[in-house]
Amino acid sequence: MKIMIIGGKGTIGKKVSDHFSKKHDVLIAGRQSGDISVDITDSLSIESMFKSTGHVDAVVCIAGEAKWAAFDSMTEEDFYIGLRSKLMGQVNLVRFGQKYLNAGGSFTLSTGILADHPVDLTTSAAMVNGAIHSFVKAVSLELKNGIRINVVSSGLVEDAVDKYEAYFPGHNPIPMKKVVNGYVKSVEGKSTGEIIRMYDNC
Amino acid sequence: MKIMIIGGKGTIGKKVSDHFSKKHDVLIAGRQSGDISVDITDSLSIESMFKSTGHVDAVVCIAGEAKWAAFDSMTEEDFYIGLRSKLMGQVNLVRFGQKYLNAGGSFTLSTGILADHPVDLTTSAAMVNGAIHSFVKAVSLELKNGIRINVVSSGLVEDAVDKYEAYFPGHNPIPMKKVVNGYVKSVEGKSTGEIIRMYDNC
Repeated sequence: MKIMIIGGKGTIGKKVSDHFSKKHDVLIAGRQSGDISVDITDSLSIESMFKSTGHVDAVVCIAGEAKWAAFDSMTEEDFYIGLRSKLMGQVNLVRFGQKYLNAGGSFTLSTGILADHPVDLTTSAAMVNGAIHSFVKAVSLELKNGIRINVVSSGLVEDAVDKYEAYFPGHNPIPMKKVVNGYVKSVEGKSTGEIIRMYDNC
Repeated sequence: MKIMIIGGKGTIGKKVSDHFSKKHDVLIAGRQSGDISVDITDSLSIESMFKSTGHVDAVVCIAGEAKWAAFDSMTEEDFYIGLRSKLMGQVNLVRFGQKYLNAGGSFTLSTGILADHPVDLTTSAAMVNGAIHSFVKAVSLELKNGIRINVVSSGLVEDAVDKYEAYFPGHNPIPMKKVVNGYVKSVEGKSTGEIIRMYDNC
């Protein structure tokens, strides 16, 4: 399979890319690194990425940001950071990518446990993740040519514990091997419209 | 209680307003009708509404729109209709309204069954509804002064069957009395961070 991984050099992305590279042809796209440059907040950049790569069998997105801050300090514009990046960035990948996926191909998007179990400071991040969960269910009803779409929603991942554990009191870290398996289930499995939850205490 | 109902003249809104008016002081806000004029897509309009009404005990929002269309015909801008209206409109009601709710007061937002059980043509509407579900869970952790927030997510409501039943094959209509009870549970109950699902076949 030819698999395009947007964000394939990030904390989760590099483990996912390493795994898929063992038996597939992996193309890594990223804002500052990888084989192809893409800024997912810019739909023209997404379109140009697909034009340069041509057809693929799977698109995996492990990219996108949202602002973490106290709700009473968040401006309207702060919310739009996540709406333009992690939310519409992933929606636009599907909008443009549907024309570049081979029949039977798949999209795998990424969210996180905040959609279901938010913590302090995450009104924007939770909102964006929840939006993608419902979007994936809805768009799976409409994609053509047997194209599938799923989303992997991980808890606090093992490799990000040092950076994030203070924000996730009592959350059990998710081993990277399990996180990678979420993506494998989506790309190599047959399901569509699935929210693949990799959580460990809820 | 002094209850502000945004969208209090709509299909669901008028039943909710009629019910609460029996024992509470109800103020209706709307784009074109009601006691106060408000355009929830415009945060300045929201702020000005609260300045003119002063403090209230409950804010209920049954307003906001999102575009229904085939996914492969949706532009990026089409998605922003729902993001600016039903999503950020309700988020901004909470952002500004938190300063105008009396201690122990409540917000009740509105979504719909598409968040969990989308139908054809609803990628944008489903997305916005799912976003609000996760937002409500997240922001309930941060609101101060005992302020609560819940969201009512109804299935196809009885009074909208004529207009929408063709889009919801096999969905059992939800009696208006049950829909109204969703809002009563939020406003007169004690829960917070709750998604009050009024569904009948899932």
